[in-house]
Amino acid sequence: LSGHILIAGYGRVGQAVGALLTARGQAYLALDVDADCVRASRAEGRSVFFGDASRAEVLEAAGADRAKAVVVALDDREATTRLVRALREAHPELPIYVRARDPEHAQNLQQDGATYAVPETIAGSLLLGAAILEGLGHDIAEVDRFMDSIRAKGYADLGHSPKGRP
Amino acid sequence: LSGHILIAGYGRVGQAVGALLTARGQAYLALDVDADCVRASRAEGRSVFFGDASRAEVLEAAGADRAKAVVVALDDREATTRLVRALREAHPELPIYVRARDPEHAQNLQQDGATYAVPETIAGSLLLGAAILEGLGHDIAEVDRFMDSIRAKGYADLGHSPKGRP
Repeated sequence: LSGHILIAGYGRVGQAVGALLTARGQAYLALDVDADCVRASRAEGRSVFFGDASRAEVLEAAGADRAKAVVVALDDREATTRLVRALREAHPELPIYVRARDPEHAQNLQQDGATYAVPETIAGSLLLGAAILEGLGHDIAEVDRFMDSIRAKGYADLGHSPKGRP
Repeated sequence: LSGHILIAGYGRVGQAVGALLTARGQAYLALDVDADCVRASRAEGRSVFFGDASRAEVLEAAGADRAKAVVVALDDREATTRLVRALREAHPELPIYVRARDPEHAQNLQQDGATYAVPETIAGSLLLGAAILEGLGHDIAEVDRFMDSIRAKGYADLGHSPKGRP
């Protein structure tokens, strides 16, 4: 096994990312601790295996060293941070894409070596904002560049709430 | 007041969308029932007013008929549906952008007349998937077109989970 995308965690986010990859002809191998989920997914012919994807050694056994990229799609914030650090230490060149909780978490993960971290709480707002600007007639390429700049700054511009409301 | 963007609900999503609009020089007026949030936001010079944004008559009083677009960024699923229906009935041409809970909710809202609805639970996965494909060397314009096609189909391709896990 080599040249695959390894998906750590096959819950909602891992499954959606897997569906996107499949639609683009990109093979993946996913790991999850939920035995029912693994069974149901395998019954549909997907490459999903049982294992605690929050443990770096489990990912190593699944060929992290020969993977094209790893996608960390765990629910748990601390487990995500630990896994990203362990993967980056073991594989300096491995592309690591991560589901982050919020902009602060995303920034910390990028400092910990994540190639790219998407803050969940902000993603919907970003897509909504881009759609509105496009709908208002702003140039699409310009909107894309603007979104790229927000991403490059770690979404910090959007993470500050006067009251920290959810 | 006219030509403004009306933001119904100024929680996390409404605030992030407002920040995006401000960064692009687009004026908005937001409404929320959280008095502390309204006070803190106004102290920072933002156009945020106290009001129950889930009620269509409150949006009418805030100039929905003269707004360039309305952004529905409420937490509540049922309130969102009710508001979109009421706005669409009163204003057949008004662009209505909506924060939806999940792909099913987004599809229903588009049937109810929303111009565009972003499912929160899928947005992070979409951004993550796009970043991975770009990182793997897929053509960026092609990735964008692919994402547009998923959006056009109401994200249905990504919403099916074998176990309905969160």
